[in-house]
Amino acid sequence: MGRVTERRRVIRIRDGAVTERPDTLVAEEPLEIRLNGKPLAITMRTPGDDFALAAGFLVSEGVLGSADELQSIVYCAGATADGSNTYNVVDVKTAPGLVLPDINLERNVYTTSSCGLCGKASLDAVRTTARFPISDTPPVRLGTELLACLPDRLRAAQRVFDRTGGLHAAALFSEDGELLDIREDVGRHNAVDKLVGRALQDGRLPLSRAVLLVSGRASFELAQKAVMAGIPVLAAVSAPSSLAVDLAAETGLTLVGFLRGSSMNVYAGEHRIAVRAAASQG
Amino acid sequence: MGRVTERRRVIRIRDGAVTERPDTLVAEEPLEIRLNGKPLAITMRTPGDDFALAAGFLVSEGVLGSADELQSIVYCAGATADGSNTYNVVDVKTAPGLVLPDINLERNVYTTSSCGLCGKASLDAVRTTARFPISDTPPVRLGTELLACLPDRLRAAQRVFDRTGGLHAAALFSEDGELLDIREDVGRHNAVDKLVGRALQDGRLPLSRAVLLVSGRASFELAQKAVMAGIPVLAAVSAPSSLAVDLAAETGLTLVGFLRGSSMNVYAGEHRIAVRAAASQG
Repeated sequence: MGRVTERRRVIRIRDGAVTERPDTLVAEEPLEIRLNGKPLAITMRTPGDDFALAAGFLVSEGVLGSADELQSIVYCAGATADGSNTYNVVDVKTAPGLVLPDINLERNVYTTSSCGLCGKASLDAVRTTARFPISDTPPVRLGTELLACLPDRLRAAQRVFDRTGGLHAAALFSEDGELLDIREDVGRHNAVDKLVGRALQDGRLPLSRAVLLVSGRASFELAQKAVMAGIPVLAAVSAPSSLAVDLAAETGLTLVGFLRGSSMNVYAGEHRIAVRAAASQG
Repeated sequence: MGRVTERRRVIRIRDGAVTERPDTLVAEEPLEIRLNGKPLAITMRTPGDDFALAAGFLVSEGVLGSADELQSIVYCAGATADGSNTYNVVDVKTAPGLVLPDINLERNVYTTSSCGLCGKASLDAVRTTARFPISDTPPVRLGTELLACLPDRLRAAQRVFDRTGGLHAAALFSEDGELLDIREDVGRHNAVDKLVGRALQDGRLPLSRAVLLVSGRASFELAQKAVMAGIPVLAAVSAPSSLAVDLAAETGLTLVGFLRGSSMNVYAGEHRIAVRAAASQG
């Protein structure tokens, strides 16, 4: 595809000095995800890994849980007047006989008519649609020194950010701190969907021994995506929201925030973090 | 409402030292926006200014353009089994006789069936739904020294960030650099909607002499919201996307990125920035 970045003219101003030159920007284009031919959602994303993005999105929504439930993913041609393919519409076909959940998506949040709309309803929706419980047996156990190394490994592996400054990154690490996969996207939720979708395609779901690291904040939506992929640990460089913490506490997800140097905050699932050892050694 | 922040227990790890204490987190809750009784969208937002958020969202979508088109906004009670009000569902009633655009929202992006889905279709959708052209006559004209001051003024006015580190901020400034309004939210698009919605409620649309500053990146969606409110200048502390630049170039919006200290990049609408003067004086 080669559309991860695009060039535009920019006027640079540095301490009053003005120069004009081409600049590299992160590409942003809409992607429509269709499920068995029916439009389901549109997301603004950075082109590339679109099939993984679509598959991961459907994992997050409880539609897909394993590679054999996925029959095919194709770009839809012919949507334009001249029959050309914009590579911005993908159709995901599920395996024959797969029972689909009743998805009623509006901005990627379930509406539950039973109890009105509240944080509790959002938590309930994740619990009722989760395909995998978080079941790392024995539990993944991470030392704080290992966790402290992950942000640097993420940044070292970010290829596009250096050129554009405009991308969010998400990465999967093994419990030994090895980088398993990294994705960058203009939307952080897309980066996570691309990671999870690729894992589904490779038959690696649930990701029950993996650590998910995101470059920014930890919102409810990102915690939801971790839970839906069976990931036991979500770490974020910045702050979590209240609802992300509540979801982590309810599902058994370990949630680490403000992971910076040797500092971090553990908001839930501290049994996976070797903090007591650190305390007794301190 | 008083739910902008919430308290949760956190385990802090600092160089191996472990402490447990309460922490202040940014609150995140779903908000369902109904239009004349019909569910339209759900957004994950920080509670507070919900009526402004709903009004601003409808400005962004081309439904509302002035205060007299808005009849009422209320919280919907009784959605829960026990009839209580979660304060997470608002219903916006438009004035009698107001013709509504045919909105078909999926993740806040219009689908245009005519040309398939592509960046161009996204630009077309904004152009066809825009209620105000950007018409600042004479054009707003900003010196680079003034622009350079705005991020510090934004940060000085951010009240919740200091406590949580988890909020995006958006602010409106006058062309003289005076802070007009600021909103913080777990979602940056919500912060902008809250600014624009309050302006609608106060009869201040279009915001044809205002500068919109956002704390992070400038995506297509944020550029769209600026254009729909008639704002002539969008400045961002971080990078813009390709499609945000394209929308700015097409609509006449001035788009400034990487606004840090005395450095900035101007991606479109440079006639509003006194760069030539800076160059000749440099």
